[in-house]
Amino acid sequence: VIVEVLAVGTELLLGHTVNTNAATIGTKLADAGVDLQYSSVIGDDHDRMVAAIRLALSRADAIVITGGLGPTQDDITREAISSATDRPLRFSDEYAARLKRWWESRGREMPESNLKQAEYPEGAVLLDNPKGTAPALQLETDGAVIFALPGVPAELEVLLDLYVVPVLAERAGEGVVVSRVIRTYGESESRIGELLSDLYVAKGNPSMAFLATAAEIKIRLTAHASTSDDAERLIAPLESAVKERLGRLVFGTDAETIEEIVFGLARERGWTLATAESATGGMVASRLTKVPGSSQVFRGAIVAYHEDIKLMNLGVPAGIIETHGVVSEPVAIAMADGAAAALGADVAISVTGSAGPDPQEQPVGTMVIAVHTPEQTMARTLTLPGDRERVRTYTTTGALHLARLAMSGEWWSGQPRRGRWV
Amino acid sequence: VIVEVLAVGTELLLGHTVNTNAATIGTKLADAGVDLQYSSVIGDDHDRMVAAIRLALSRADAIVITGGLGPTQDDITREAISSATDRPLRFSDEYAARLKRWWESRGREMPESNLKQAEYPEGAVLLDNPKGTAPALQLETDGAVIFALPGVPAELEVLLDLYVVPVLAERAGEGVVVSRVIRTYGESESRIGELLSDLYVAKGNPSMAFLATAAEIKIRLTAHASTSDDAERLIAPLESAVKERLGRLVFGTDAETIEEIVFGLARERGWTLATAESATGGMVASRLTKVPGSSQVFRGAIVAYHEDIKLMNLGVPAGIIETHGVVSEPVAIAMADGAAAALGADVAISVTGSAGPDPQEQPVGTMVIAVHTPEQTMARTLTLPGDRERVRTYTTTGALHLARLAMSGEWWSGQPRRGRWV
Repeated sequence: VIVEVLAVGTELLLGHTVNTNAATIGTKLADAGVDLQYSSVIGDDHDRMVAAIRLALSRADAIVITGGLGPTQDDITREAISSATDRPLRFSDEYAARLKRWWESRGREMPESNLKQAEYPEGAVLLDNPKGTAPALQLETDGAVIFALPGVPAELEVLLDLYVVPVLAERAGEGVVVSRVIRTYGESESRIGELLSDLYVAKGNPSMAFLATAAEIKIRLTAHASTSDDAERLIAPLESAVKERLGRLVFGTDAETIEEIVFGLARERGWTLATAESATGGMVASRLTKVPGSSQVFRGAIVAYHEDIKLMNLGVPAGIIETHGVVSEPVAIAMADGAAAALGADVAISVTGSAGPDPQEQPVGTMVIAVHTPEQTMARTLTLPGDRERVRTYTTTGALHLARLAMSGEWWSGQPRRGRWV
Repeated sequence: VIVEVLAVGTELLLGHTVNTNAATIGTKLADAGVDLQYSSVIGDDHDRMVAAIRLALSRADAIVITGGLGPTQDDITREAISSATDRPLRFSDEYAARLKRWWESRGREMPESNLKQAEYPEGAVLLDNPKGTAPALQLETDGAVIFALPGVPAELEVLLDLYVVPVLAERAGEGVVVSRVIRTYGESESRIGELLSDLYVAKGNPSMAFLATAAEIKIRLTAHASTSDDAERLIAPLESAVKERLGRLVFGTDAETIEEIVFGLARERGWTLATAESATGGMVASRLTKVPGSSQVFRGAIVAYHEDIKLMNLGVPAGIIETHGVVSEPVAIAMADGAAAALGADVAISVTGSAGPDPQEQPVGTMVIAVHTPEQTMARTLTLPGDRERVRTYTTTGALHLARLAMSGEWWSGQPRRGRWV
């Protein structure tokens, strides 16, 4: 089946909202072996929405529309489907009663406008939404199926799993698509491309592609086959070859994140973790505590934004700050050692730096990371381009990678201190 | 001018990468009064990319392509433009020399594959990229202009400002689009829609639309006029009416974030800030330190993930934990008071809770927030739906809003304890 995604909402065109829903749909469909070929955004404009639905009906077998099913006046997806398919809108008394019960069960009175959510284009099936009040719609038209789903990400996700993915996976027939993502850190995208140039296959089966995201370069291998076992067999030799070629640049596979790797290392070694952060303001700790079950190894963090906190709560000697300045490797080392002591952790990651927009002692983008382990404490200075948010994000990722290398005993060696790789 | 955005990359269709570039382009064009009408995603497939460019040429006056200009083998935007417009690829010796200098200036050897970035479809102008090695391209074809920009967000942003926005703003002529976003917290989207139903204008000038994002509901007013002053004059009366109707639900305007509001309140009152976080693991501190210049008022944070840290670093009495449990209002209050004392801050925000996936003492989604101010410390328990990441994000936003209300002396009253609003 050829699938087209239409994300509805002027806020998407204006850039007020980022289209994460298209990514969610793409991921779930690819996991089910369904190829997404078209993905577009439409504003809250009746005529353009009707034109987009008609264009999609002319080139796709399945259309997944997201957004525009809310209770407010600018939610016009139901009307647009009705116009594009020449089916009048009907009203479901049964769904209206269910809506009233939903609000009552939460002890709140239903705003009258929510009744709009009981409307549907003739012939459509209303699909129960366990997470919200807007039902999803499924409409079979000549030769194509239209799904309309709410734009609220948590609702969309559940409804995709419940209704859309099973239907489309079945219609897609036997073929499956399997992707493997090999995650690397430490080299530029072009250097990775060169290292793999003789293994590169754009249109082959499996195919290879490169993605650069926030300091990490990923290599995606994709295979089509009739079963996932067959697809895995196609991927396996290329995956091994890539991993062997890239060696320790590779840190993970598929959805595995650097924070999960760091956790795994800590659990393996029976070590606890802590952070001491200045310029990143708690971002390293936030990333680490994303991992479910992180309380098994994560002790806590001290965000030492003001110099007082570095002195008092982390015990950084005033003399070190006076001699070397607050953005320096000796201070980062004292912070990491101090956090390990103050928080009772085996491993402590520290960050100090000048994230901008105004320079702090050092030029903007000068970021110092240190990692304390039971064996030693080492520091490294990075020079990063970009604005405050980019510097902070790249530093957070860099700090987690340095922790991985320190914990696995492979502390950075022979790699450039500056450059695109971090 | 009618503008179409084409974002290139199979990773976008597969959902491995979220299409933030389309949002960036939409924002910058709207700010310049240019209406974005079409936005689509294309995979790294030569034929489909050529078809998409031809479709765009048939319905738009300007096409902004992003992605596919990198140095690796799957970067085929140059080739696709060349095929879609029937112009052969040329090679720029001058740009090739510049590329070599760029790498040399960074003390690194240029991978040979980067020379690909000196290719261009005949007739295109190579636009210098101050942030990276891939030049942008500008090609005037019959009646339309094509811009091709790298997909790296930081590079894209600079190149939009330098080349794309000035050209398109000029071609768009005199008209401008002005948007005002009124930001609210504390009520559901449908309730806000009802409160404003008599003021609602979908297609008028100005028009109104609603957006729900992570616990905040936004109302966007958009006006078209020949000058921005005229557009502002169209918006002003509706903006006042909406703000008056919604009263203290409104917390900010346009890009103003809740963390900036909290900072503004602290600066006004001469207060310093700190946080003590358990389940949010530093997310509240990360949000607060996003604000440039936050070091003026932010002292620091203690992430007290393990119970030891609550006892030792925040001084929460063991008896309070024994009596009430760690996820409780008395513990949140003791954490906030403890953080204010330990970190020497006037205002401290604390969070404890059960974020999941496994319940901790209380059911998943039970989150307790407290705010210490020089006047008093108060706590509030929220019950939030969704997974770990959603619960943590909504709690972080909720904590900042509670801090705003506590600092401005309007602590929560008469509002539901549960519901979609938080």
